[in-house]
Amino acid sequence: MADVVHMIDSEVFLAFSTYATIVVLKMMLMSFMTSYFRLTKQVFSNLEDTTLVKTTEDRKKLVRVDPDVERVRRCHLNDLENIVPFVVIGLLYALTGPDLSTALLHFRVFVGSRFIHTVAYVMALPQPTRGLAFGVGLFTTFSMAYRVLTTALFL
Amino acid sequence: MADVVHMIDSEVFLAFSTYATIVVLKMMLMSFMTSYFRLTKQVFSNLEDTTLVKTTEDRKKLVRVDPDVERVRRCHLNDLENIVPFVVIGLLYALTGPDLSTALLHFRVFVGSRFIHTVAYVMALPQPTRGLAFGVGLFTTFSMAYRVLTTALFL
Amino acid sequence: MADVVHMIDSEVFLAFSTYATIVVLKMMLMSFMTSYFRLTKQVFSNLEDTTLVKTTEDRKKLVRVDPDVERVRRCHLNDLENIVPFVVIGLLYALTGPDLSTALLHFRVFVGSRFIHTVAYVMALPQPTRGLAFGVGLFTTFSMAYRVLTTALFL
Repeated sequence: MADVVHMIDSEVFLAFSTYATIVVLKMMLMSFMTSYFRLTKQVFSNLEDTTLVKTTEDRKKLVRVDPDVERVRRCHLNDLENIVPFVVIGLLYALTGPDLSTALLHFRVFVGSRFIHTVAYVMALPQPTRGLAFGVGLFTTFSMAYRVLTTALFL
Repeated sequence: MADVVHMIDSEVFLAFSTYATIVVLKMMLMSFMTSYFRLTKQVFSNLEDTTLVKTTEDRKKLVRVDPDVERVRRCHLNDLENIVPFVVIGLLYALTGPDLSTALLHFRVFVGSRFIHTVAYVMALPQPTRGLAFGVGLFTTFSMAYRVLTTALFL
Repeated sequence: MADVVHMIDSEVFLAFSTYATIVVLKMMLMSFMTSYFRLTKQVFSNLEDTTLVKTTEDRKKLVRVDPDVERVRRCHLNDLENIVPFVVIGLLYALTGPDLSTALLHFRVFVGSRFIHTVAYVMALPQPTRGLAFGVGLFTTFSMAYRVLTTALFL
């Protein structure tokens, strides 16, 4: 266990653990947001789910597509497409031994950009707010990938 | 290599490796289930895929949407949305040095909840079976995230 | 930090870091490909995005579904469903201390299969090109999972 304890004692790794956990929790909140919209707007994907709000015969009408629910679902999928690469590349980046201040800058900018992205998506803010937030997050991940590949390249 | 060998010798990390691998393999089985339904029900997303079951002219009719295939695909996406957070947070949790019995409890409850979730989804069991399985998995991941943030917080 | 530096000095772990980063970057390129098709074909999911190409009144018509965009999106989702398991199981596999040559074989075959899969999907090459690429990637991941479970099994 000694080695594991040492690893978790690295400040860069602690910072990575903190920000990765926060941004993954943010991603999980999209599930709650989807459930909230589904229950309040009575919009479901599965017939068996409609019993959660109604027990009468016309339950089949509740199995439909709603633009607000689809918006939250697209935001959730975009999170998966961007937060998963951050977590994978960020973990490898943390193991390359970067400066603490540089690492913190990457982690904070990425996590901030994803919170802005979510607000911009769910509230349908005018572009290019969401596009910029998306791009900043992407750029941060590319920057970390560059360091991983230049430090650890082994083909 | 010594350090890696030591890390993999931690029983909590071995347990994490085992359960993470099992639940990721379960997620991968959803691909087979989708392929199985697509081939037996002759329902495809891409025109070029229809040659797998038919070579005549009316192949275009096979590019369509089928409720059973969509159900399996929703289950697969739900797996991605929940198993990815478990793997990320579970890995960091395993590195915080929890008690073996507490860690095993978390891993077993999560993996069990996801198997129940899949059965409930694919067989369209009455709610709240699937909702409860989903919630138990979410709660387990939150519990591990709580320990990661209280042990390793570094903002 | 010493332990982390040692871990990253393991050649198998360096190789994993390199190939995992490359294949995750490939997955991220699907976002650019989707944006490229959306902007050039003027096809959007959100009304607010249409201002990126048009400012007149008939912007609502641009919120629609296009087969080429959907094709890229299905390829992106398939990447998520397959590359995430590779990264998780590959990381655990790298920690089990496999032979460098065996590990390199797994990593190279998987990453190669996913590049072929993407080309076959986006260019709609005749089957079974894409099916075979998909299957080879899956088999590689299963092979690594087998080693993880036989080396680290702790239930």
